[in-house]
Amino acid sequence: MKTFKEFLGEKKAIVEKAIEEELNKLTYPEVIAEGMKYAVLNGGKRLRPILLLMTLDLLEKDMRLGTHIGAAIEMIHSYSLVHDDLPALDNDDYRRGKLTTHKKFGEAQGILIGDALLTHAFAILSERREGLNSDQILDIVNLTGKYAGVNGMIGGQMVDIESEGKKIDFETLKYIHRNKTGKLIKLPLEIGAIIGNISEEKRDVLVRYGELIGLAFQIKDDILDIEGDFEKIGKPVGSDLELEKSTYPSLFGMEKTKKILEETLIEAKDILIENFGFEKSRRFVELADYIGYREN
Amino acid sequence: MKTFKEFLGEKKAIVEKAIEEELNKLTYPEVIAEGMKYAVLNGGKRLRPILLLMTLDLLEKDMRLGTHIGAAIEMIHSYSLVHDDLPALDNDDYRRGKLTTHKKFGEAQGILIGDALLTHAFAILSERREGLNSDQILDIVNLTGKYAGVNGMIGGQMVDIESEGKKIDFETLKYIHRNKTGKLIKLPLEIGAIIGNISEEKRDVLVRYGELIGLAFQIKDDILDIEGDFEKIGKPVGSDLELEKSTYPSLFGMEKTKKILEETLIEAKDILIENFGFEKSRRFVELADYIGYREN
Repeated sequence: MKTFKEFLGEKKAIVEKAIEEELNKLTYPEVIAEGMKYAVLNGGKRLRPILLLMTLDLLEKDMRLGTHIGAAIEMIHSYSLVHDDLPALDNDDYRRGKLTTHKKFGEAQGILIGDALLTHAFAILSERREGLNSDQILDIVNLTGKYAGVNGMIGGQMVDIESEGKKIDFETLKYIHRNKTGKLIKLPLEIGAIIGNISEEKRDVLVRYGELIGLAFQIKDDILDIEGDFEKIGKPVGSDLELEKSTYPSLFGMEKTKKILEETLIEAKDILIENFGFEKSRRFVELADYIGYREN
Repeated sequence: MKTFKEFLGEKKAIVEKAIEEELNKLTYPEVIAEGMKYAVLNGGKRLRPILLLMTLDLLEKDMRLGTHIGAAIEMIHSYSLVHDDLPALDNDDYRRGKLTTHKKFGEAQGILIGDALLTHAFAILSERREGLNSDQILDIVNLTGKYAGVNGMIGGQMVDIESEGKKIDFETLKYIHRNKTGKLIKLPLEIGAIIGNISEEKRDVLVRYGELIGLAFQIKDDILDIEGDFEKIGKPVGSDLELEKSTYPSLFGMEKTKKILEETLIEAKDILIENFGFEKSRRFVELADYIGYREN
């Protein structure tokens, strides 16, 4: 059997091929077409599209039903990073060791490249697709619009910004995590459920798993911002502290934070094993640990 | 019979009610919900949603099929203005005599409010809607994604920015107009055609009318930037000159520009009258003149 690393690498290659296929269709205006490629094809982990492919595997559906939908989700993730990095927001010059998009192409261009990625994602998502009916596609578009918007990713991002330099309570921190990163990690699992046409009970299990690994992802991010290695995370360590952001470590201390992370991962793994059995859950268990114990 | 002004006022009220209904559902995070309302409910002309309602009238379809879709299109138009006004782009402090969104709420907030409007528009467009089947809704979402994106509005905006301070040829100017403003003015006419389920020939007529009034709209904008009145247009006169933008007047001179505007309007009116008859085209004829001879 393939190691998890090999498994991830294979899925990643499939996802990146779909992203390239979509983006290579765009040629003009050059700066936007180039900028979109630069922003998306930058060595990301492809966690969200890989989660969609894994869900389709789990539900014994043809993975090809999800490759281009996964590419669109990755474009939305990438646009959010491009806009996050802008001077008016996090003002980051580097991401994964490379210049951020607005640093490379200019600030006006960075804003428009982000806008173009978001818009193009919806154009891709709403294409007719063999093997899916129009109702399913519509549900996928609608869920994506909700999870990426004011009651999802952007809402979380906004509260995060508004909270800088303020003491916030645990409820607010949970709102930020649930929305800023959580919704877009839950999204591919739910899209997989829509494609797989499974029962509401099974869908709830996938949703819960998504929520838990989304939370674990964020807690781990907070830990890496303090204990991480610039060479590995590709951006300066300590930027949360500098921006006086409330995080799990700042609210609970490092020791308790690591305990919460571990408990979250155990709950995520257990709920999947209970409902789908150990054999079928294997890659999801490995993914949870990968998220919780990664170095970047 | 109602005057055209009364007719426009009535349609505008219907559109604004739908926009408010949609935006009033949003409450949290407050800054985004408030900012979205501020950006959209600012006294715009509502040209795009009104065009959709007019098309439904023309095709004898229930106007209510288009009110919330029109609201979504107006949100996309508004987001594009919010991002256009940002310091990195046009750096405008005022729009229609009021502070621009980023001036009122802050720059980071302005970026996110724009992102939220764009995303929310796709969430609204992809809702199931009585009287429309899923294929129609999907076609509407897909067309909107294409016309608002890299091969539409954003593409035009990008080439416009890249052309500042440069002499550009007429082909490039046409590309900018066709995409930056043209596509989103054509969009409601084509959405009306999708809802009305009409023949390709009739659809082409509506598309051509949309292209022509879109062009007229842009030419008139260029004229107003030189001859307009601050009190009426709500922003400083002469900003195109200052940014050294290529425009119809800068390429052709004012006299010829006005002649081109007139010819464009005549062509727009004629094509509709020829195909739908004088009586049914009446409001479209009046709208063309309204666009060409407006003072703001």
